[in-house]
Order: sequence, then C-alpha cells, then structure tokens
Amino acid sequence: MKIAVLGGGNGGMTMAAHIALMGHEVRIYDKYSRVLEGFAEKRQIHLDGVLGKDVAQLATVSTELSEVVSDVDMVMVVTPAFAHEELARKMASLLRKDTIVVLHPGRTGGALEFSRILHSLARESCPPIAEAQTLLYACRRTGLEEAMVYGLKRRVDFAVLPASATGRVAEKLCPLFSQFKPVANVLETSLLNVGAIFHPAPTIMNSAWIEMTKGNFEHYRQGISPSVALVLEKIDGERIGVAKALGVHTITTVQWLQDVYGVTEENLYSAIQANKVYSGIKAASSLDTRYISEDVPMSLVPLAHLGKLARVETPTIDAIIELASVIHKTDYRLEGRTLEKMGLDHCPIAELGNFVA
Amino acid sequence: MKIAVLGGGNGGMTMAAHIALMGHEVRIYDKYSRVLEGFAEKRQIHLDGVLGKDVAQLATVSTELSEVVSDVDMVMVVTPAFAHEELARKMASLLRKDTIVVLHPGRTGGALEFSRILHSLARESCPPIAEAQTLLYACRRTGLEEAMVYGLKRRVDFAVLPASATGRVAEKLCPLFSQFKPVANVLETSLLNVGAIFHPAPTIMNSAWIEMTKGNFEHYRQGISPSVALVLEKIDGERIGVAKALGVHTITTVQWLQDVYGVTEENLYSAIQANKVYSGIKAASSLDTRYISEDVPMSLVPLAHLGKLARVETPTIDAIIELASVIHKTDYRLEGRTLEKMGLDHCPIAELGNFVA
Repeated sequence: MKIAVLGGGNGGMTMAAHIALMGHEVRIYDKYSRVLEGFAEKRQIHLDGVLGKDVAQLATVSTELSEVVSDVDMVMVVTPAFAHEELARKMASLLRKDTIVVLHPGRTGGALEFSRILHSLARESCPPIAEAQTLLYACRRTGLEEAMVYGLKRRVDFAVLPASATGRVAEKLCPLFSQFKPVANVLETSLLNVGAIFHPAPTIMNSAWIEMTKGNFEHYRQGISPSVALVLEKIDGERIGVAKALGVHTITTVQWLQDVYGVTEENLYSAIQANKVYSGIKAASSLDTRYISEDVPMSLVPLAHLGKLARVETPTIDAIIELASVIHKTDYRLEGRTLEKMGLDHCPIAELGNFVA
Repeated sequence: MKIAVLGGGNGGMTMAAHIALMGHEVRIYDKYSRVLEGFAEKRQIHLDGVLGKDVAQLATVSTELSEVVSDVDMVMVVTPAFAHEELARKMASLLRKDTIVVLHPGRTGGALEFSRILHSLARESCPPIAEAQTLLYACRRTGLEEAMVYGLKRRVDFAVLPASATGRVAEKLCPLFSQFKPVANVLETSLLNVGAIFHPAPTIMNSAWIEMTKGNFEHYRQGISPSVALVLEKIDGERIGVAKALGVHTITTVQWLQDVYGVTEENLYSAIQANKVYSGIKAASSLDTRYISEDVPMSLVPLAHLGKLARVETPTIDAIIELASVIHKTDYRLEGRTLEKMGLDHCPIAELGNFVA
C-alpha cells in the first residue's frame, strides 16, 4: 500500500519506519522542516528496540501536505491532537474517497472533529475516519535519523466514523498491526481516553516540582503519589459516569492497565506502581508541555462537554481545566474541543448512536 | 488584666508567654492534655527570639474551659479556625458580657460564625467578637516548655463584630500589641485572608512532591514557582472581586506583603522570593495538614460562599476546594463555613453593612 504518515516526532518517525519495513511505500510529512531535516536527505530511519534493528527506506519526506497525502491508501495522523483541525482543513481537497484516515490517537472526539471539518469542506468525497484509543508504541527519537521502540501495547482499540465502515477499515488496518481491535464506535475510543487521566492532573498537581527541578522525577511512579492517584480515580469515575449516561461501553483505567500491560491491581495507585513499563518515564521538563496543551483541550474539555450533553457533573475534570487555563493563560474550555467542534451541538442524546453509526 | 489564651500550640504558647511577661494574669487552655503537659506542672514557658529571652509564669494551665475563661477580661483564641464552632458553643454560658473575645486569626468569617453561635445560645450576654487578620507571630514551639519567636508582623489589622464596639476593644487590645490597627468591620479582615492565598493551592499543586519527600522543600520559595504564583494571583483576583462586589475595602496580597514585610515587588512571585521571612519555611510534611484542613473550609469555602452572595464567580477558588475535597474525602463546600454558618444566609447584600455595623 501507499501510506502517508503525518507527524515526524517520536511516534510518527517510529510508525513510518515500522510500516516501511513491512514493505509498504511510506511518505512522511511534518509542518516543520526542522523536524524532518535529520532524515530528509537519505530518507532513511534507523529503527532499534523491541521491533528489531533495521534501516527503513521512505519514499517521500516533505513539508508539502499535497506531496504526501494525495493518492495514498491510508493516512496515519501521528501528531498532537491540537493539530487535527488544521490538518483536516488542509487535507479536505486532497483525499480520495477511498483513502482511510487513522488518528493515532484521536484523544477525545478526534474522529468527530476531523470528520465534521472534512464534511463541511468536501461533502461528496469524505473518507471514513478511524481513531486509535492510544499510540501503539512506547518510543523516542534518539538521534537525527534514529528512533528507539521501548515497547508495544498488547492491545489498541480503534473505531471508525461512520461505524458502518469499520469492516472496510479493519481489512486494511489490522494486517498492519495485529494489536488493533475494532470496537463499536468512536464514542467508545473517545471515552476510553486514558491520557485524560494520566497526563494533566499529575502535571498540574506537581507544578512547582516540575518548575524547580525541570521535571527531574518520574511522572508515573513518583508524580502519581497516593493523593494524586485519588484525584485520578475521581476523574476516571467522572469519565465512566459520562460514558454510562451516554450509553457507551467503557472500562476503568485500572482494567485498561490490566488489558494493555497485564497489571493486576485493585486500585490505580498500586497498578501504576506495579507497571514496569512506566518505570523511568520522566515528568515534563516544564509546564509548557503536551500533557497540558494537548490533553486539557483535546481530552478533558471534550469529556466535560460530553458530560454537559449527558447532564453528568464533572467537577474534578473542571477543576483541572480551570487550573490549566490559569497556568497557560488560555481559556481551554472555549479553545478546546467543544460539542460544536465535535459536531454534536445539535445532537440529542437519543440520536448519538445513529450519529456515529 | 486577666487574660485567657485558648490553644496551646505554637501560637498559643507564644502569646500566653508574651502577655504574661507584660505582667498580666494569664490562663491557658487546650482541649488536649498532651499539648499542655510539657509546661502544666511548673506553669512556665521559656520564650526566646525577637521578643527577648525570658521565663513567663502563667496563672492557670488547664483542659477545663470553665477554669480558664470564666471571669476574664479578654479571651485570645489561638486555635485552628475549625475549632471556633465548638469553642463558641462551650464558652457561650461562661463569658461575661464585658469580656472581649479575639480570634487570632479569624480566617474568613470567624467573628461572624462565633457571634452567630453565641447569640443563638446566650442572646442576653453576648460579648463583642474581634478577629485579627493574621497571627502576630512567626513562631514555633521548640521544646516541652520552650517557644521561639522568629519574627513579628509589622502590622496586624483587626475588626470587631459589632463594629460599634471597636473603640471599646481597641482600648484594651492595642496597649497589648502596638502592631494592631482597627479597620472598618469584620468583612474587611475576613476578606483580607492571605492564608487563603498562600496555603492551600501551593500544597495541592505540589501533592506528590510533599508525599514523596515528606515536604522536604521550602513552601514559599520553592513551592510557589512561577506557575503556582499565577494561580495564587488568580485566586487573589477572585478574592478582590468578591470584596469589591460587596463594597468592602481590601488590598492585593502583593500590597499586603509590602505593608506587613516591607517587600516592594510588582508581582506575587517576585514578592515571595524577595521576602526573607519566608526563607527556610518548610512545606507541610504530608497532605494531612492545616494548609488544607483549616484553610480550605475556613478560608476558601467562605470566600466562595461570599462570592455567591455577591454573584461573583470564583472558578479557581472552586477548583482548589474541589481537589482538596477529593484528597481529603470530605465535601468541604458543605463542611466549611457556609453563608448559613456565618449567619448571612438571609442577609441581602444591601443589608450587609448594617449587619456588621
């Protein structure tokens, strides 16, 4: 297949190399030439880690979106979720109707927002939009043309908007990644957004520790102390409450840690302590971090807005959004993924199932 | 004068010794005998620090409230504010009508709550209730019968409920403490509650740092990093907004730092860094701390409730209350000082001035 990978960061580089090594023709895009320049000339990425050590040859490395996404079978979007809106606008006229777009991950409402924009700009040729529940890889760019894969998730849920296109997408996507499992619809992937649980609250609840030490402590094992874990469990409960009220199947984050990492513990604090994959992961080096700038507007805000739709209160989620907004001097409740941006502002709860079907 | 000091902790011990060394007859009370037992037998407190080195002789050391507060000229309440309610109930039948009660400090709504309870239980003989805006001393108990005074505030505002009794109270109180300056009414002292700014948010925003190191960092100089200071300034702005809407004079916390410590800086972060008195003050050693258990229910909650009365939103204050409630598994919004507990639940804004006059 011809496959476009959008985003040249840790995840994008890794996915581009991984897919190229399977024998597909891979084109990679990033908005910023400085991100690509390390491997733009030779178009090679040296991959190392749990996927083996090998050199992947890419077909195209470009900052021109049209050179990358035109006429491909699949577009893998591996950017921060706050880039989805702009990418959707720019891609609208470039996509074939049978191209499959996959967001790795969508955070909350990624496919909904992406699809709303494509429909508004190119109603006749709108492709199905898939969203993964999380990124497959634990990985880091380790050099100009090198990426290291530390681990793979055992299982990655994905869903497609419209859900009726799930079979067609699965046919092409699952052969690439055996970990990918289709679920009912994009509400299920969007509501099982564990980044919303793991990222913003532990960052904000350790603000000065981050600023005083440049994040020189472990985000999970140290930053999620017993009291921080209580707050995360409360946020998780609010997320589950919203899902229930909307009639969407979901699981606890503790259960997710068991499904994805094989950790069997009863509460979130113990499960995080027991998860060896989290060992050594450093906290953000400053509060200018995607743990806030991506996970608040693209995860907590849409969860809070879905709560409004469901008439479920989300006071702890709201508290984290408020503190993030003060720290970043940005009204994330307005700037983030609102019901309007997800195309749900005129959708009654009873119609939600049909809307994503 | 005969003066009762309620509370045998750092502040109470220091104040009892300080007043006794002025030549007054001092009786000290604490609910817990373990707090008093270090100096109960000899009834002596060794005071050291900026007030000089001397041994104070107390008249009475007791866990019986009636032995301490009956027939005194003044009652100094130097306990956590969450003890005010119980003390008021127990003291109601013991106080003379001309005894003066002073809360050191009242936090927010201390005199209002104290007075409401006394009125409800002993309508005919209710004394005036004064509240200080802050504790005069920076001090610590340093041994069984020793206390150390590190510094004194340059200025401590106080107010009396009813305000009409201010002159009568000032006549007896100001000769004891030259730093004490009367202000218009208890709304002014209650709304200039800087503990509400300095204590809960920096604690909650460094939760794991506290739990992982047992608070082995400086609460002010390290715990109030630039981003934490932004949150404190937002909370300060909400406090000032409530005061304005209620027609109560107040000043910024930056101005307060100038008035009280002589620090002249433009923003809160710089002012805190520049205040040498804050140097070396350690963070709470756990999240089971008065910085939450006192300052959330007795400072932030009444500020939020006064905001409701004033129809002023207090979203950042609300966010800290929410996180504190989750961490302490307590609904502080209900447990704390509500409008009802302050006796203001049926008081229209227009009547507020008369209510405290």
